[in-house]
Amino acid sequence: MQIFYADHHAHHDCAGEIKDGELKPCFENPTRADAVEKSLKEASYSWLPPTTDFGLDPILAVHEAGYITFLQTAWAHWQDAGRSGDIFPLCWPGDGMRRDVSPENIDGKIGLYAFDSGTPICAGTYDVAYQGAQCALNAAQALLDGESQSFAFSRPPGHHAMPGQYGGYCFMNNAAIAAQHLRNAGEARVAVLDVDYHHGNGTQAIFYDRSDVFVTNIHSDPINEYPYFMGHADETGIGAGEGYNLNLPLPKGTDWQTYEPALKTALDRIREFSASKLIVSFGADTYKEDPLGYFKLERENFTQIGKMIAGLGLPTATILEGGYAIDELGNNVVAMLRGLEGAQ
Amino acid sequence: MQIFYADHHAHHDCAGEIKDGELKPCFENPTRADAVEKSLKEASYSWLPPTTDFGLDPILAVHEAGYITFLQTAWAHWQDAGRSGDIFPLCWPGDGMRRDVSPENIDGKIGLYAFDSGTPICAGTYDVAYQGAQCALNAAQALLDGESQSFAFSRPPGHHAMPGQYGGYCFMNNAAIAAQHLRNAGEARVAVLDVDYHHGNGTQAIFYDRSDVFVTNIHSDPINEYPYFMGHADETGIGAGEGYNLNLPLPKGTDWQTYEPALKTALDRIREFSASKLIVSFGADTYKEDPLGYFKLERENFTQIGKMIAGLGLPTATILEGGYAIDELGNNVVAMLRGLEGAQ
Repeated sequence: MQIFYADHHAHHDCAGEIKDGELKPCFENPTRADAVEKSLKEASYSWLPPTTDFGLDPILAVHEAGYITFLQTAWAHWQDAGRSGDIFPLCWPGDGMRRDVSPENIDGKIGLYAFDSGTPICAGTYDVAYQGAQCALNAAQALLDGESQSFAFSRPPGHHAMPGQYGGYCFMNNAAIAAQHLRNAGEARVAVLDVDYHHGNGTQAIFYDRSDVFVTNIHSDPINEYPYFMGHADETGIGAGEGYNLNLPLPKGTDWQTYEPALKTALDRIREFSASKLIVSFGADTYKEDPLGYFKLERENFTQIGKMIAGLGLPTATILEGGYAIDELGNNVVAMLRGLEGAQ
Repeated sequence: MQIFYADHHAHHDCAGEIKDGELKPCFENPTRADAVEKSLKEASYSWLPPTTDFGLDPILAVHEAGYITFLQTAWAHWQDAGRSGDIFPLCWPGDGMRRDVSPENIDGKIGLYAFDSGTPICAGTYDVAYQGAQCALNAAQALLDGESQSFAFSRPPGHHAMPGQYGGYCFMNNAAIAAQHLRNAGEARVAVLDVDYHHGNGTQAIFYDRSDVFVTNIHSDPINEYPYFMGHADETGIGAGEGYNLNLPLPKGTDWQTYEPALKTALDRIREFSASKLIVSFGADTYKEDPLGYFKLERENFTQIGKMIAGLGLPTATILEGGYAIDELGNNVVAMLRGLEGAQ
């Protein structure tokens, strides 16, 4: 299990997020990765920094250039406008409004590139997101170099990041960047399995019209859970991608008894797809005590998930997405890694 | 000058709005209408409550039913979810996401119907917006009943409210509701002149594909001002409405020397259109000291605007939109009314 981690992540440390109509401390904060680091150390895992810098090209392979430029420059523009706190959106192109405009004002730019008000941007956000993407790329490269398992525990997470928009704490879609890197390296068929509590709308969007990357999500039904506007069961792909997207929304309160059959279904479809490599978006927010999730998985279920995934026999790069029960996050991650390694 | 006013407006009194990334006291607050009330009284104007209740039909003539149901029920749903503060959006359908979903969760519903995070909803919002729309309808009806001038100083304002979305402090598009009421009463051609500092995107959207209501806006260029995603000069209408929308964006810093020719252009186009009635969306946020506006109009310019509009010789219902230099707002409104009455 080759593990990548950039402790640089602590520079993405915003003061608050908007939740339930109030400004609250960020659930997605540096203590998450610190907790994982501590538990991995206790479990005698070691890790590498993202040794190889793959540059911007693999990021631009899945994200729009204008969006990445926005991420690079937003903080400077925000400061130029005299703002001192974190970046939050003011308005956005609503139904019937234009997206084909190029606002000069920072509030207009933010409106073009945000789909969420719960995702603050602060001084370090771009650099940390970039390093997170490099962790994911190193994890993907490890598979190409012959590793059977790799893991990137970067933060912030990535699976909500759309081709040209940020939200859900996500800025760069690490899983999609890793999957595309494998495709560009010659892997004909890559699968992405997303087992975060929330639907990975960004990953779905990035590959929705393609048949070379199969994307499957097991998540809380968006009829009453974030991200609401994607992740429904009838989203099966479009054009050449028709049939290459599988959403398995589950009700709040889902426990292992309900979860396991959905996971089997997803894994069966990955087998049918004959992928040569697998990317796993792993969120531990399916845990029973997660403050942002309402599934009822136990810690040992993460080991079971890992084992079932390992049963595919595919070289697998696992990327950390959500998980906000921070006191338990590190142990839940270790439980998952033990499963991926085939622990009994 | 028949004037309508619902002092009920004070029940829309939210705790704060998101601006510059921070939660700040609301610029659009009850003291605005109080200030207008005081100045009108000092200037010996009198007013009526919205005597006739026209019901929901004229509101549903310009707004989507699902949106109005949302406004009616949002506060109760928000409270049912255990929330105590004002309503703010969490996420929305970004680029490539679905609008054809019906989230059960209040955060999902809000995301469908909001295009702005600076527009809080509190307990009284729906009722106050409804009464504001009734003020506008009474002002329109006054013209049908033979008045040459009427004025509604309801709040919150309305011109940003889209067919199915709220934002920019606006929930119901009072100007559009009034204009449509005139159309339904048999007026063949109605014009809307919007002289608020900000583009009246909602009014434009509501009539964009129609040739029976001509809409013209004089406003701060949305390339670097709210609402960014509408209000550009190349938006001239669509389909049957092609040529019946005129946007005259002006740069920040615009004073009377720049403003007057634009107003002349707008009025010339209204003359060419041969409207039988006129609705004016009047924002005093073009005033030189407005905290949200960057035009440089003096108080006497409002009298000049009023006089130039009166020069059309059209029965005119004027509806108050923005204006946030509250200490000056009442006097600026009086200056406008004096002009509409043809003061020298």
